[in-house]
Amino acid sequence: MKIGIVGLGLIGGSLALDLRSIGHTILAVSRRQETCEQAIARHIVDDASTDLRLMTDADVVFLCIPLGAIDSTVEQLIPHLSFNTVLTDVGSVKGSVVKTVAPRWQNFVGGHPMAGIAESGLEAALPKLFVDRPYVLTPIESTPLAAVELVADIARSLQSRVYQCNPDDHDRAVAWISHLPVMISASLIATCMGEPDLVALNLAQKLASSGFRDTSRVGGGNPELGVMMAKYNKEAVLRSLHAYRQQVDQIIQQIEQERWNELADRLAQTRQDRPQFL
Amino acid sequence: MKIGIVGLGLIGGSLALDLRSIGHTILAVSRRQETCEQAIARHIVDDASTDLRLMTDADVVFLCIPLGAIDSTVEQLIPHLSFNTVLTDVGSVKGSVVKTVAPRWQNFVGGHPMAGIAESGLEAALPKLFVDRPYVLTPIESTPLAAVELVADIARSLQSRVYQCNPDDHDRAVAWISHLPVMISASLIATCMGEPDLVALNLAQKLASSGFRDTSRVGGGNPELGVMMAKYNKEAVLRSLHAYRQQVDQIIQQIEQERWNELADRLAQTRQDRPQFL
Repeated sequence: MKIGIVGLGLIGGSLALDLRSIGHTILAVSRRQETCEQAIARHIVDDASTDLRLMTDADVVFLCIPLGAIDSTVEQLIPHLSFNTVLTDVGSVKGSVVKTVAPRWQNFVGGHPMAGIAESGLEAALPKLFVDRPYVLTPIESTPLAAVELVADIARSLQSRVYQCNPDDHDRAVAWISHLPVMISASLIATCMGEPDLVALNLAQKLASSGFRDTSRVGGGNPELGVMMAKYNKEAVLRSLHAYRQQVDQIIQQIEQERWNELADRLAQTRQDRPQFL
Repeated sequence: MKIGIVGLGLIGGSLALDLRSIGHTILAVSRRQETCEQAIARHIVDDASTDLRLMTDADVVFLCIPLGAIDSTVEQLIPHLSFNTVLTDVGSVKGSVVKTVAPRWQNFVGGHPMAGIAESGLEAALPKLFVDRPYVLTPIESTPLAAVELVADIARSLQSRVYQCNPDDHDRAVAWISHLPVMISASLIATCMGEPDLVALNLAQKLASSGFRDTSRVGGGNPELGVMMAKYNKEAVLRSLHAYRQQVDQIIQQIEQERWNELADRLAQTRQDRPQFL
């Protein structure tokens, strides 16, 4: 198959590596000529260009660009696509992308391969990045079944675990397990730094250990990614934050009112529930 | 030196192992005869008994019992101590312990060796558990300097990093880096489990990865420990939770009002601040 990849960052580059290694022809578009040359020289792709016309021959095109670039890129890309080309993306939020792209290209299948690592860029691209990782597809009622099956087959060929759901359920799920943790973890760091008693703050910094390290980890990550989550998944992130604030309020009340048995029950329940996520 | 240890759990047992290995004589008290026999048989202690009178000969006594047992144990112990005996404890909250014990025994030095592992009990006791770990001492104005120095010397002989501060600063610091993380991490699990859209909940459980795993870890821990933190460090935990709720409110407002630049600044700041704790 001829597979087009628009955007040669971590995800686009890693997709190219794996898909080319199993025999597909990879045509890639990058904004930067230098990236195109590098991708060809490293045999990551068969051909690369800064010109979207390279996508004319592709059977399927993966949009591997930031969420904020999808709208304008699709507008420029569509005139160059063949009628039967299947278009898919790799964005980490699906509702807004599907709303933007589906009305303009029927053969569009929203996708989210969940294999982020801390690094970014083509330099960071890795083979086998998607093995045993979730790959979520979010078709809607008007999506042709054949298009969904095509992308699902490719995802399975990467040895990903393929899931299908509607875009809103995807966005709610990632709000819980990915976006909400960033916001509450960042809030932990910000709250500690606001300690007015400098002896206590200094001591906290010296005593911090694995509990603080783990709970604060995702709050110390890439700020642009955090803003992207909030911006493109605003509704689900706010929904999760409001629900979360209620839980914090309940814990505060239980401690203020010294309802220790209720607090014990709550913590016993969370200990019991956590393994369902892992 | 003759060192007394009251309570042969993880901390008491581990202290006994290390202190005996560097030549001290270890006398231990446990509530259970079986634990005493085991400790003697495994050469963890020189002598052990269920009777606190064994502490009469000790130069220094470590209280290695749960926070809730300190009040009654000290009352029973004091009649058996020699006038010069230095008393110390290993509790993870210091204000309440110091208030309870210091008025009753002048040679008391509050202490907190921070080397918890998930396991508990004498079976879990390990040599070298305190190497390179913080050991916080919380003397007050009336504490004799010689008593502080004696406990500090013992902590240094365990190769711990020894810190000194007042009990309230200790309790504020551990609220930030240990107790608050438990409450916010447990709230994350509880909030996710409250998702009424079962498709989204089920998907969240399937998609959860390292971000959720790390942020939820301490919220899935021992419920009794969590209640103990809240109960004995109530003031500092509530103080940190109220400050934390304000941060969550600010993030909610920034997202609701789409103040993306401010959110980006906030997340850039937390990324910059986090390494100060680690």
